[in-house]
Amino acid sequence: MSNPVLVEVLRGDIVESRHRGAIAVFDADGKAVLEIGDTMRPTFPRSAVKSIQALPLVETGAADAYGFGDKELALSCASHDGEAGHVELARAMLAKAGLDEQALECGTHWPSSQKATIELARSGGTANALHNNCSGKHSGFLCACCHAGIEHRGYVKAGHRYQEMLCEALENVTGAAHSADNRAIDGCSIPTYAVPLRNLAHGFARMATGVGLGEERAKAARRLFAACMAEPFHVGGSESFDTLLMGRAPGRLFVKVGAEGVYCAAVPELGLGIALKCDDGAFRAAEVMVATVMAKLVAGDETLTGILREFMNPVLTNRNGMVVGGLRPTAALA
Amino acid sequence: MSNPVLVEVLRGDIVESRHRGAIAVFDADGKAVLEIGDTMRPTFPRSAVKSIQALPLVETGAADAYGFGDKELALSCASHDGEAGHVELARAMLAKAGLDEQALECGTHWPSSQKATIELARSGGTANALHNNCSGKHSGFLCACCHAGIEHRGYVKAGHRYQEMLCEALENVTGAAHSADNRAIDGCSIPTYAVPLRNLAHGFARMATGVGLGEERAKAARRLFAACMAEPFHVGGSESFDTLLMGRAPGRLFVKVGAEGVYCAAVPELGLGIALKCDDGAFRAAEVMVATVMAKLVAGDETLTGILREFMNPVLTNRNGMVVGGLRPTAALA
Repeated sequence: MSNPVLVEVLRGDIVESRHRGAIAVFDADGKAVLEIGDTMRPTFPRSAVKSIQALPLVETGAADAYGFGDKELALSCASHDGEAGHVELARAMLAKAGLDEQALECGTHWPSSQKATIELARSGGTANALHNNCSGKHSGFLCACCHAGIEHRGYVKAGHRYQEMLCEALENVTGAAHSADNRAIDGCSIPTYAVPLRNLAHGFARMATGVGLGEERAKAARRLFAACMAEPFHVGGSESFDTLLMGRAPGRLFVKVGAEGVYCAAVPELGLGIALKCDDGAFRAAEVMVATVMAKLVAGDETLTGILREFMNPVLTNRNGMVVGGLRPTAALA
Repeated sequence: MSNPVLVEVLRGDIVESRHRGAIAVFDADGKAVLEIGDTMRPTFPRSAVKSIQALPLVETGAADAYGFGDKELALSCASHDGEAGHVELARAMLAKAGLDEQALECGTHWPSSQKATIELARSGGTANALHNNCSGKHSGFLCACCHAGIEHRGYVKAGHRYQEMLCEALENVTGAAHSADNRAIDGCSIPTYAVPLRNLAHGFARMATGVGLGEERAKAARRLFAACMAEPFHVGGSESFDTLLMGRAPGRLFVKVGAEGVYCAAVPELGLGIALKCDDGAFRAAEVMVATVMAKLVAGDETLTGILREFMNPVLTNRNGMVVGGLRPTAALA
């Protein structure tokens, strides 16, 4: 099955590039509200499921024991840009558990934000694992291990006790099997599992509503979603789409990007979960897709549709700041 | 018409992302040797036609007057990474015409190379127009204007005398009409024209062979191609695909990337020109496409196919250097 073109990139009046994709919107009872393209194809959600992977941090009692508030919980669900505020908060989280960046097994890269990279280099600094966009998630893993008395070394590997807990949470929330058969290794070295977009959409409706989850898990899920929506800077960064969109609609929209053009998202007040993937892995198109499908779901709400419209048709500027084109959703999407 | 999937991105054993595209291979007489997908669709070649846009620099006599050798000519055809060697050479080219970076109208951005950006920031420097990946091309434009007595201010704008010369060269080499109807603005502010891949492939066969071009133009084209193949660092940078591939097969393969997943290329000894575009604009896939189609064309040559095979199946590593997947051409391409 060939997924439809959902986003076009224009230069002047001419379509220069095209992005295909698939989208699933489900309610918490598992009813499909909208499906475009092949929503059964196994898809690695990558970082889009970090909120599910943060459940054990809350459920083990670690978050409360270390006094974590919305900022720390948001950072545990984040793909952050490596700005100073992210790095310092991840460092502080680790310190609560008596650890430092040496314990992180996510690997090192310079900040995703070019501005943060330039600032770091100018100050004579160099990148360490705290700058890795996943350092908040990994700090959460380490804190939960320490609190629960689990040996943290090797925590990124399939088979480690903590990875088994994450796997249980992913299976429980999405209803999809997670095993060696659909497993690969993520950018930060932990396992990632390819599952249908349908299951991811259903899972995010459950996360947003608590329906179908145990009482403790439902509470933890709502707390994590509320934290991300309250502290969107700590989920992305100053220039990140997720941060900007969640910041414009406080408490009303949840979005989380994953590598290779994935989004998991929710409109909590409608009880709906969204999962989508741009076939070719492009972020720019996945962003237009998630904004456009959300606008469709909240069509009656002028405030939200007004906000979302700003994200549906981004303009492209060149090196002199001239508008040279833009992105737009196709009829198959809008 | 839907272009076929030509490149797959694997994570573990599972296909994570897919890239579609179209490819044209033509000889200098205008005969199609290979066509995949829609090769008639208007396509902006962007920076892939910089060698054609460098023709007037040679044809006006400016290159000789200023004593430009292979390095300067290669930089005139380059999308460079903003490394110190590129920046200093562009500065020296401008100085020959009594100009400096103030004359450049391409706009400013930090080096495309993250390493070069970090080095520049560490040294207390900041980005200027010389770091723009197009600064070599623009320096060539400025030198040609100065030598030919053309007022250089406004040289990026459609209608400027020098842009008319570039437009004439593009029309002559590709045989496609270039007008306001198929014009848009490129990243560096000069006009870019959408033309069929067929015409671009035919044009690059002409550039490689001189067939169908006037005598002076044919000489200039061969000189520019030879310069790029002799000094590939100045066409891209230490880690650029174009630099690495041309460096491995000295004088035998010509490749030049353009924004949004375009390649214009040639196998001069076969007299063949190649033009391709990845539908979604991804560089990683366009690179696999150009290496794979070249390997098909030189199938009898073990040296070249051995080199090209290294570029057809790049591996993906994660932040800890683990191999987590890779790219591969599909049956429709290979």
